[in-house]
Amino acid sequence: MKDHRNLGAYFDGENFNITVWAPLHDQILYKPVKGRETEMDKKGEYFFLKLDESVDGDLYTLDIDGTILADPLSRFQPTGVAGPSMLVNTSKYKWSAARWEDHPVDDHIIYEMHIGTFSPEGTYRGAENKLQYLKDLGVTALEIMPLSQSYGSRNWGYDGVFPFAPSYSYGTPSDLAHFIDKCHMLGLSCFLDIVYNHLGPIGNVFPSFAPYFSNKYSTPWGQAVNLDGAYSGGVREMLLANLSYWIEDFHFDGFRMDSTQNIYDSSPRHFLSEVTAHVQSLSSRLGRKVVMIAESDKNDASIIRPAEKCGLGFDAEWADDLHHAFHSYTTGERTGYYLDYGNLSDIAYVLEHGYLYDGKYSNYLKAVRGTDFSGEKPSSLVVALQNHDQIGNRALGERIASLVSFENLKLGASVFLLAPFTPMIFMGEEYGETSPFWFFMQTDDRKFAENVNMGRKREFKDFDWPDKIRDPSSIDAFLESKLQWKDNTQNRCILALYRDLIQARKDFIQRSDRLGWKVSSDGNIIRIFYPKTRLGVLHNFGSVPIEVSGSVILNTSSEKYGGSNTNPRIIAEPGSVLTLQS
Amino acid sequence: MKDHRNLGAYFDGENFNITVWAPLHDQILYKPVKGRETEMDKKGEYFFLKLDESVDGDLYTLDIDGTILADPLSRFQPTGVAGPSMLVNTSKYKWSAARWEDHPVDDHIIYEMHIGTFSPEGTYRGAENKLQYLKDLGVTALEIMPLSQSYGSRNWGYDGVFPFAPSYSYGTPSDLAHFIDKCHMLGLSCFLDIVYNHLGPIGNVFPSFAPYFSNKYSTPWGQAVNLDGAYSGGVREMLLANLSYWIEDFHFDGFRMDSTQNIYDSSPRHFLSEVTAHVQSLSSRLGRKVVMIAESDKNDASIIRPAEKCGLGFDAEWADDLHHAFHSYTTGERTGYYLDYGNLSDIAYVLEHGYLYDGKYSNYLKAVRGTDFSGEKPSSLVVALQNHDQIGNRALGERIASLVSFENLKLGASVFLLAPFTPMIFMGEEYGETSPFWFFMQTDDRKFAENVNMGRKREFKDFDWPDKIRDPSSIDAFLESKLQWKDNTQNRCILALYRDLIQARKDFIQRSDRLGWKVSSDGNIIRIFYPKTRLGVLHNFGSVPIEVSGSVILNTSSEKYGGSNTNPRIIAEPGSVLTLQS
Repeated sequence: MKDHRNLGAYFDGENFNITVWAPLHDQILYKPVKGRETEMDKKGEYFFLKLDESVDGDLYTLDIDGTILADPLSRFQPTGVAGPSMLVNTSKYKWSAARWEDHPVDDHIIYEMHIGTFSPEGTYRGAENKLQYLKDLGVTALEIMPLSQSYGSRNWGYDGVFPFAPSYSYGTPSDLAHFIDKCHMLGLSCFLDIVYNHLGPIGNVFPSFAPYFSNKYSTPWGQAVNLDGAYSGGVREMLLANLSYWIEDFHFDGFRMDSTQNIYDSSPRHFLSEVTAHVQSLSSRLGRKVVMIAESDKNDASIIRPAEKCGLGFDAEWADDLHHAFHSYTTGERTGYYLDYGNLSDIAYVLEHGYLYDGKYSNYLKAVRGTDFSGEKPSSLVVALQNHDQIGNRALGERIASLVSFENLKLGASVFLLAPFTPMIFMGEEYGETSPFWFFMQTDDRKFAENVNMGRKREFKDFDWPDKIRDPSSIDAFLESKLQWKDNTQNRCILALYRDLIQARKDFIQRSDRLGWKVSSDGNIIRIFYPKTRLGVLHNFGSVPIEVSGSVILNTSSEKYGGSNTNPRIIAEPGSVLTLQS
Repeated sequence: MKDHRNLGAYFDGENFNITVWAPLHDQILYKPVKGRETEMDKKGEYFFLKLDESVDGDLYTLDIDGTILADPLSRFQPTGVAGPSMLVNTSKYKWSAARWEDHPVDDHIIYEMHIGTFSPEGTYRGAENKLQYLKDLGVTALEIMPLSQSYGSRNWGYDGVFPFAPSYSYGTPSDLAHFIDKCHMLGLSCFLDIVYNHLGPIGNVFPSFAPYFSNKYSTPWGQAVNLDGAYSGGVREMLLANLSYWIEDFHFDGFRMDSTQNIYDSSPRHFLSEVTAHVQSLSSRLGRKVVMIAESDKNDASIIRPAEKCGLGFDAEWADDLHHAFHSYTTGERTGYYLDYGNLSDIAYVLEHGYLYDGKYSNYLKAVRGTDFSGEKPSSLVVALQNHDQIGNRALGERIASLVSFENLKLGASVFLLAPFTPMIFMGEEYGETSPFWFFMQTDDRKFAENVNMGRKREFKDFDWPDKIRDPSSIDAFLESKLQWKDNTQNRCILALYRDLIQARKDFIQRSDRLGWKVSSDGNIIRIFYPKTRLGVLHNFGSVPIEVSGSVILNTSSEKYGGSNTNPRIIAEPGSVLTLQS
């Protein structure tokens, strides 16, 4: 028996079962699209129904006290949020990789991708064709932007309203399993981005079934999830079941949990602490490592501390400071949250201390931000030169390759991939993709689309960018965001550099203990030294070449990477040089 | 220099200073009622003005960008919330008790009082006349319901809108200091009830000065206080200054913090944890013990755990379970939150474990409630047979003396005063006062008064009580709530019992280590045993007398306490018997 607590519609080895939580309702009818409706049995707060094996693939809806809706815990919505749910045996996939390698977060180089725009096909099958390429690149884990079904066929994923139903746009649940299986065959881990702080604005059927939402707290996207009020037990249960479902039926190796700062819970045991304990205990039982990564804007080290140290127990958290510091310094941008950044010394500070805002006052937030990070494992911070948010939440969706010089782009790659932290690459970054990654979604509701559009204009009021933002609901916003997979000289040079930097990271940083790293800076130079492997990294942010000491392993300005440095074993042009120190 | 960070209007030994926090405003004029207005100097987020000593007692308002208002940090509002503020040198009082006894919470027997209804006069001076009586009763600390100025001249205190201004209805700030001084001369401690989760509905000038409130969270009484958003630093500073002010200028010995479950803070360091650390460090500096008590409905032991154990660091918290269990069992009430109580075994469980809801599912809340309490100090739970809420929030404001039999009333006194926890008595309880304690407030706004009235009717919808609730804004609700100080035989018997129980508590429970107490129950009998002093307490909840073993110290059914037990050294009639065990 699986651990996902038998919620929703699942196959138990002999029968299909449907379990629906509706504590305040009197009657639920199971209504197959073809065939006769059946009244479900109520026991306590749950409704139950057992069906035979033959129903695999049948479409159904639920009639809850007279309202006909999809199953909120639907495993698949083949025609989208407004259509019926499908009975799917998600545990029937025959895995080729029944055992596979998994790793703690320390070993990972993460690659964030959006299935719909990663490959030309925009499907799991399309993405599979690129897995060998990613393996050769050297990344170790894919992080898939949220899959939960949202309105329409194109969406970043954060508007999902069926947390158990992988979006029909990318393939079937079985195609998803096949994709993950392929990853595992190649030794790649697969992480899923999950959204537990809100549900999307269109097609959310949950409120018709139970008190899933709270009026006590609000999020930027509407009502918060009810994790501590009346009936919160059932809500927490559903979300824990969701984690188990992705781990057990789909073999996901980890999660990135969206906007944890908007997951409010005032009960004695914070839900996030229950989440990490639940995953840890399931991991032990399965003999696997499941990596838990929190998105958080708090710079709060307690997120990654274990429960014994009063922490929430995540393995890692997204950390923005290195991105903001590098972006602001190299682009000169100072509007919006970049107001808090801009000095080269900020980059050195983050490389040394983990957080820049480690209890400092933020002029942007008008409040103190963050805690001390010293003594924590640097691998518990996930850093990225760019990610879906940093690109797509720009008015014009530009990637960093469109914003800084070629040499600074390579310098950036090196700063992030050779930091003591856990690096993440956003799809296409590895070859210097320059097409935009727009914010996109789909709706037929023009008024809603306009609200989203206006909301974005309001959001960008602090920024100085022109007023030609692509309408997020347009098909162009989606199509223009697909990777172009261009292969010109510059692309090839960048790709070669990413491969070599990743290899250098594996050879010299992952094998070092990373706890004794040292950072120093001097003028426009930032140096990092990893004592165990004696790796010296020199980032030359200036415009003047300088001489290097030690035996050079890699020089970003060398000809191999499109540079013009004729003496790369001795001279550090603007860019980075890796050396072995004697 | 005092530690209350020089906020508001204060005398520094030479001059009066006014400091006003208004980060988003351009101009503030100091406008004395008599004399010429002066523009205040702005430095950073604060406005400053220095005045000479002669202004002591002057009335003033502040003109903030054209709006004329009282000073939000006003030390006194002699004509109420709508009038001008008064310049008061709150540090000029000449203390008789410059040094006085203070105690950790373990030593306390607390007496909760509302200044306006405690004495016939309803003032500090009126209350002073009763201090010797309270000393003789044996209580060790007074807990004063909130003093902050609220609208009108009668209010429980929880509608306060000037947190630095003790209400004009009870006397001047100097009268308050005199009252506390008298307490200290008699060896009584004085605690203040403070409200940091909301401000009252009428007369709140804070929003006109700075972003003191948050839209992120809501409380039952409106907007939550901004402790983690933009400009939250100034809000936190103001509240910490408020604590320092009451400690340093008024010599308060402790605080009861209202409804801490509605003090929301998602920043890395919870404000409540900062509060207890601030008070602790101020206490050390002053060489005093300041007791911090939280009101909380969470049954969450982390409230009273120290920071090293991931706790908020309070000395104690109000704990309702013993009240609800006893009240529900003896009155037979099962509506509202009493739904969760009613069995005699609940009382025994609480006496043994601290919380009844220690992780159990609450049918009333429809959620799991509480944490384990084992291993914590029992004195960190403040328990009461009744308090202002349990009486006044009843539709008809009845005290327990009007609801249960004479013998059960005495049994109740014994259950609470001889528990291992810290007991609290509500004013009048000690002589069996039977007049109601209504919920009362004052307003001239009929519509608002009606809303409050309707709100209470909604609140009481679960309860079975008749529909003749006193209108909270009527003068009768206030006058009928004053203690009657009746002195008939029954009153005298109860008072004698309270004195003797308190003395027994001091002799046998406070001197025991209280960590090894044992609880056992058998039929209608609950027994507690304190090993160090070998005190045995037998609570007979049944209707049948039983024989006792050991040497009897006190028997609630003896003639001294109005009982008819002719053999009190051998027989336990329904009620309690204290014995020394050989």
